[in-house]
Amino acid sequence: MKLYIIKIGGNVIDDEKQLSSFLNDFASVSESKILVHGGGKIATELSKQLGIEAKMVDGRRITDADTLKVVQMVYGGLINKNIVAQLQSRNCNSIGLTGADANIILATKRAVSPTLEGVGGGLDYGFVGDIAKVNSEKLNALLNSSFTPIIAPLTHDGKGQMLNTNADTMASAISIAMTTWGEVNLIYCFEKSGVLKNVEDDNSVIEKMNHADYEKYKGEGIISKGMIPKLDNAFEAIKQGVKSVIICHAKDLKKVAAGQKAGTTLLSF
Amino acid sequence: MKLYIIKIGGNVIDDEKQLSSFLNDFASVSESKILVHGGGKIATELSKQLGIEAKMVDGRRITDADTLKVVQMVYGGLINKNIVAQLQSRNCNSIGLTGADANIILATKRAVSPTLEGVGGGLDYGFVGDIAKVNSEKLNALLNSSFTPIIAPLTHDGKGQMLNTNADTMASAISIAMTTWGEVNLIYCFEKSGVLKNVEDDNSVIEKMNHADYEKYKGEGIISKGMIPKLDNAFEAIKQGVKSVIICHAKDLKKVAAGQKAGTTLLSF
Repeated sequence: MKLYIIKIGGNVIDDEKQLSSFLNDFASVSESKILVHGGGKIATELSKQLGIEAKMVDGRRITDADTLKVVQMVYGGLINKNIVAQLQSRNCNSIGLTGADANIILATKRAVSPTLEGVGGGLDYGFVGDIAKVNSEKLNALLNSSFTPIIAPLTHDGKGQMLNTNADTMASAISIAMTTWGEVNLIYCFEKSGVLKNVEDDNSVIEKMNHADYEKYKGEGIISKGMIPKLDNAFEAIKQGVKSVIICHAKDLKKVAAGQKAGTTLLSF
Repeated sequence: MKLYIIKIGGNVIDDEKQLSSFLNDFASVSESKILVHGGGKIATELSKQLGIEAKMVDGRRITDADTLKVVQMVYGGLINKNIVAQLQSRNCNSIGLTGADANIILATKRAVSPTLEGVGGGLDYGFVGDIAKVNSEKLNALLNSSFTPIIAPLTHDGKGQMLNTNADTMASAISIAMTTWGEVNLIYCFEKSGVLKNVEDDNSVIEKMNHADYEKYKGEGIISKGMIPKLDNAFEAIKQGVKSVIICHAKDLKKVAAGQKAGTTLLSF
């Protein structure tokens, strides 16, 4: 089996027109495929409307009990089902899932960081799940029934608790686990043309990058901030047997899935 | 295949302790099973918090665009995933679905009732879906993969639009469609001990009732209001080949699934 795991970022989801166009392209991928979607601004907006303050640390949302409810509703109910309904209208028989559904992704609640004298710490991310296990045989069973899994960035702890999990990390972990069942190709789609040398210039795409290049770019400050966790996830996938990892603009999905050049290709050496 | 379709009502869902106890009993049913859940008060409360006025006509919610978002979030995201996570902790490999997922239930948006001179009409239920088709082969595929479907009261129109659909009606329609695949037993679980002769007296359960009895009770005003659409759905299931339909208290599920007497049993003659 040739399988595409495709991640779509929140900024694209927030734009109805871009999302619709992306879903056209996703539906047209003829191989087996899984979509992992991010959250976008809707959860932050709903939190605001409900008077829940959004707390972010290092680009990650602090998930208290109220925020968990909001992300569970927005990611698992609103965004996930809107995507599924739209894909059904494109003859793509999608099935919306969180990590709890079919027990596909078990996670453990992130431990509070230890408090060190003079250093601080004691940071509690709240109901955030670090992936413990992907039950790839369950995903494979769904693919074998010709369903296309659409996965929201939520997991569970196996003890009845839902957890909030980063979508980039989920896409990487799912890709690695699915290598048991075939050739896996991971595509991170977002609102930029790839990994950029100059974040202001969408023409400065780094076309190919191995891990040494990545370390060099990081050292030079060319790659920074939000791209670092994304690329850490992406290189982990390459390291653990995922055949190809490409980071590209959402509008280039069709090209990339057809084997044409676009975005940044990660190299395994 | 012997299959149980079990509906759980909103009042039980609203009570954490009752829900937990019900899920214990549901998980312990050893035959193939599908759960259809209602909504409860959370959607109404969230609407209030967001300043969306809840509009009801004949016990049915009028679903404008904002209300659809709320029910999609609450039913499809919050309640459905909480139930799924809790069932996973009870070793029941559940998979949460709306009608859009796996394309299991297609519906058509309810038409605005015609306006008649001197009579009124023109009632627009909004984004409410009347079931057009249950794709039972998709549900059967999930059951064959040993998944237990947990179904939220939402459908889709096949054109990208999610719709709000009555959970009792969904349970009945799913039961009828699943008769293609085996012996179907439908159990409506709610907060009363069955269909009551005296709504104030939980000991006044009508143990058995055929359609003629039902008509008689309706004529006498013994059965009225919210019980009428529930019983219409229930008798439709009996009429169309569902082997047994029982209406009982949620706490009696275990008894009923074990073939012991509880609640109201509908008779086919």
